[in-house]
Order: sequence, then C-alpha cells, then structure tokens
Amino acid sequence: MNKTSFSAFTNNYKDILEKELKKNVEKLVAPTNLKDSMLYSLNAGGKRIRPLLLFATIQAYGKDPLIGLLPATAIEMIHTYSLIHDDLPSMDDDDLRRGLPTNHKVYGEATAILAGDALLTYSFQIMTNMKQCNIPADTILTAIGLLAEAAGAEGMVGGQVADIEGENKALNQQELEQIHLHKTGKLLEVSVIIGAKLAGAANTEMKLLKQFAYHLGLAFQIRDDILDLEGDEALIGKPIGSDMDNHKSTYPKILTMDGAKSELDLHIRQAKDHLASLHINSAILEEITDLIAYRNN
Amino acid sequence: MNKTSFSAFTNNYKDILEKELKKNVEKLVAPTNLKDSMLYSLNAGGKRIRPLLLFATIQAYGKDPLIGLLPATAIEMIHTYSLIHDDLPSMDDDDLRRGLPTNHKVYGEATAILAGDALLTYSFQIMTNMKQCNIPADTILTAIGLLAEAAGAEGMVGGQVADIEGENKALNQQELEQIHLHKTGKLLEVSVIIGAKLAGAANTEMKLLKQFAYHLGLAFQIRDDILDLEGDEALIGKPIGSDMDNHKSTYPKILTMDGAKSELDLHIRQAKDHLASLHINSAILEEITDLIAYRNN
Repeated sequence: MNKTSFSAFTNNYKDILEKELKKNVEKLVAPTNLKDSMLYSLNAGGKRIRPLLLFATIQAYGKDPLIGLLPATAIEMIHTYSLIHDDLPSMDDDDLRRGLPTNHKVYGEATAILAGDALLTYSFQIMTNMKQCNIPADTILTAIGLLAEAAGAEGMVGGQVADIEGENKALNQQELEQIHLHKTGKLLEVSVIIGAKLAGAANTEMKLLKQFAYHLGLAFQIRDDILDLEGDEALIGKPIGSDMDNHKSTYPKILTMDGAKSELDLHIRQAKDHLASLHINSAILEEITDLIAYRNN
Repeated sequence: MNKTSFSAFTNNYKDILEKELKKNVEKLVAPTNLKDSMLYSLNAGGKRIRPLLLFATIQAYGKDPLIGLLPATAIEMIHTYSLIHDDLPSMDDDDLRRGLPTNHKVYGEATAILAGDALLTYSFQIMTNMKQCNIPADTILTAIGLLAEAAGAEGMVGGQVADIEGENKALNQQELEQIHLHKTGKLLEVSVIIGAKLAGAANTEMKLLKQFAYHLGLAFQIRDDILDLEGDEALIGKPIGSDMDNHKSTYPKILTMDGAKSELDLHIRQAKDHLASLHINSAILEEITDLIAYRNN
C-alpha cells in the first residue's frame, strides 16, 4: 500500500472518530465543568491507534469500517480515562501530556478523577447504542464483556497496579512483559478482536489475531521505552528520561539499547507473519504496525 | 408485613448478595493487592439498600428475586466504587467509613483509585453475564444502558461534581434536591427500574415506579442530613457534624430541623402513595421505605 492511501485512511477515520467523541460528550446534560474536563483530554490529540486498529481490522475483512464507530469511540474514551488517572499526583504525577498540562493541572484533582470515571462509564453506554446500527444484541453483549475484561482488573487496571508495584524493583524481561501485556496490550488486543467480531471473522482466526496483537502490544511498549531515552522532547510532549527518574524497569535497561531495538524488530516481524498467515486484506494493519514500531511520539 | 418476615427477607438476600460480591472478586486473576482493596470496601458492610430494592421490586411482581442477583451485584459494586472515590483526599477527604479506615487510608491513594476503577469496570462485565440466566440479550442491553446512564455524567458522577461545586455556597432547596437526585437518587431509581424490567413490568408502570424512587431518593438524603446532626457517632461510623465542618448545604440548614423532619415525612408518604397506586405486592418495598426514612446509620 502506498503512503498516500494510508494517510488518507488515517486522516479520514481519525476525523470521523474525533467528531463522534466530541458529539457524544457535548450532548450530555451534565455540569459544564465536567464536560469541559472530559473534552479537554479527548481533544488533546493522540494517535488514535486503538480506533484505527479496530477500523483497519474491519476493512481487512472487506466490511465498512464505520460499523465499528461506536466501539472505537468507547475504546478511545477508556484509553483517555486511563491517561487522566495515570497522570494523577498519587500515580505518575505528570504535569504534561502531549505537550499540554495534564487534566488535573487544569481542572483540579477531584474533577479529573470524576471526568475519568464519567468517560469509563459513558463508554459502556455508547457500546449499548450499537443496537441502533443493526448489530445483533448477542454480538454487542459479547463485545461489552470483552471490553470490560480488557479494561478491568484482569487487564489494563491490573497492569497499572502491577506497574506501580514494580517501581523501584529490578524486574526481569518476563515480569516486564506481563505488566505491559496487561497495561497496554489488552486494550490493543480487544480493539482488533471487537473489529474482527463485527466483521464476522471466524473463531479460528481469533487466535492468530490475538498473536498479532500480542506482538504489536510488546512492540508498542518497547518503542515507548526507546523514545523515553532517544526521543525528541518537543515531539513526545513530556520530558525525556522520566522513566529513569521514576526508577522504572525498561527494555533498554534490561536488554541494552541495541538489544531493545532488536527485540522491537523481532516483534514487528512476528506481528506481520501472523497477519500474513490470515489471508485477509491486511495492508492497513501492516502500516499501523510500522507506525507503532517506528513512531517518533 | 410483620417485622420477622421482613428481616428474614433482608438477611437472606443480603447474605446471598455478599457471597456473590466476594465470589466474583476472588475469582479474578489480578494483583492480590488490587483484589484485597476491592474486597475491603465490598466487605465493609452497609445496608445494601440498592440490591434489596432491586430484589424487592422483582418480588413485588411475583417473580424470583434471584433473577436480579447479577445486576444487584453490579449496582452494589458501582455504589462501593463511588464511596471509595468520594472519600479520597481530593474529594471529601474522609478517614473513616462505616467505622473503619477508608480504602485509601489502608491501601494508599493510587490503589484506592484503581480499585474503584476496577469495580466500576467489573460491574459492566457482570451485567453481561446475565445471559447465563436466560434473560434476553435485548433486555440485558437495555439494563446496561440504563445503569451506565444512572451512574455516569448525567447521573451519579454529575451529581458528585455538582455537590463539590456547591460547597461553601448557600444553595436553595431546589438546587440541593437536584444535586441529591443525581448523586444518590439515580442509582436508587435504576435499582427499582432494572428490577421491574426483569420482572416484566409494563412500561406504563415505570412512571409510577420512578416517582416512588424520586421520593425515596430525597427521603434518603434528608435522613442522611438529619443523622449528620442528631445521629449516634458509634452507629454512623464517622464524626457527627462533618457536613457543617465542610460548609455543605443541608436540609436542616435550609428548612430547620423540624422543617427537615416534616419534609422527610412528606416524601415517605408520597413514596408509599405511589407504591399503593401500582397494585403490586409492595409490602417489602414499603418496609425498605421505612428503613430508609427512620434508619440510625
């Protein structure tokens, strides 16, 4: 696939997604300050990797990506709430996110916590609205169950707790992978899986898609760790070396920088191998894989 | 209804509910500290008013209350997460809840926030498990949508934001009611409505049930305000007069103590009148109404 049609795909669906995020929050009958705080973080940009993965998976099966607009919106809201809560003083205590003051720096801690709670809750309400798109109720229920599992104690939230517990400890590679497979990987995986379910993929294909997402999730985190040391502060939007300051275990620390880069290449190759074995139209999924592997922010 | 059979009802269903809460968290494959923190607040007691309302509504329509066990579990998890987040230093900054140290005092702020997030997320996963109880997928989706609406920006979370914004302001009675109808009322209402939907109540009856819940929600809050001034500290489990200290608007402050008590009686009478107009077997719902109105904690 050429770069022009890939960027046409991403620009088109990012634009549709961002309008949907905004529209859904604006129509809420709720305190203005709460809505502003929710919109502030939703509008703060970001690569929209999870929605793009969901859209691209549907497209790979020859279906209209927009049948996934509501779950893509829900997943981006969950991702956004997790960033708001992660940035709080009692967690990572970050002042900047994507070059802007973090939510609690602008709206205060109480409102930031509640904006996160509201985004998480709203995401499940938005999932139920899929019935307006002629998706069978059983399929929607399955998707809600998978999303809650990926986002909760057995997924993202559990990963965040393990991440906090792992600070100031020298973790081995396996322990580090377990943290990131939960904290980051599960929500990436469920984006692919919900897309595949909506597109009518066979259950037998889910295993290969999960393996694709497994390697994609680890690649995502390794790139994150590399950027924390070698990235451009202006592009990342937060200070370089903050993982070092936080005494966090990272891939470069465990494997050396060269080792981390080889590990990244390995996961990218394996992700693409799993994609290739699926015999779907995976051009855009491959581009997203490269985007994750070689991004600058 | 005699007191013995009412307390048999509450003891029986509280016991079943508490076992279900515990079972669902214990089976999670998640960090031990996270599960302990979730269980700590779930096990800290409480009147289980919302689950009892849900069970009693189903019983009033002659159905088995246990068809509502999973939504009752989900609603109690949402109620519990809201208490954990409300108690945080950046919100009400409470050290005690039901006579025990608050969650963040035991597990730290980060874990308390994440335990709340995990409970909220898990509640929606548990809702999807209702399909194991032969409840139609469409009914479950409707219930999930209603629960998310009641718990989110347009309901409980919005009410909590309005409550914080109302501190240090002299609110009038209407403003105070709007806060409490959202912060407390919506989750009580949805407990009744989900119970009624599961029992197959007609849509025309929902309006009367909502009016019942409306008065019940206001009665609940007025009693709370009265207890904050006249209650027994040992029974309430937190210091008397804390609303005064927080410069919060309360019913006794706006209406005088006698006025607040008359207002409480009025809402209880109206709640019971709406129940009576439904021609259902409402004996237990009436007992719960009295329990809310005249409780000591």
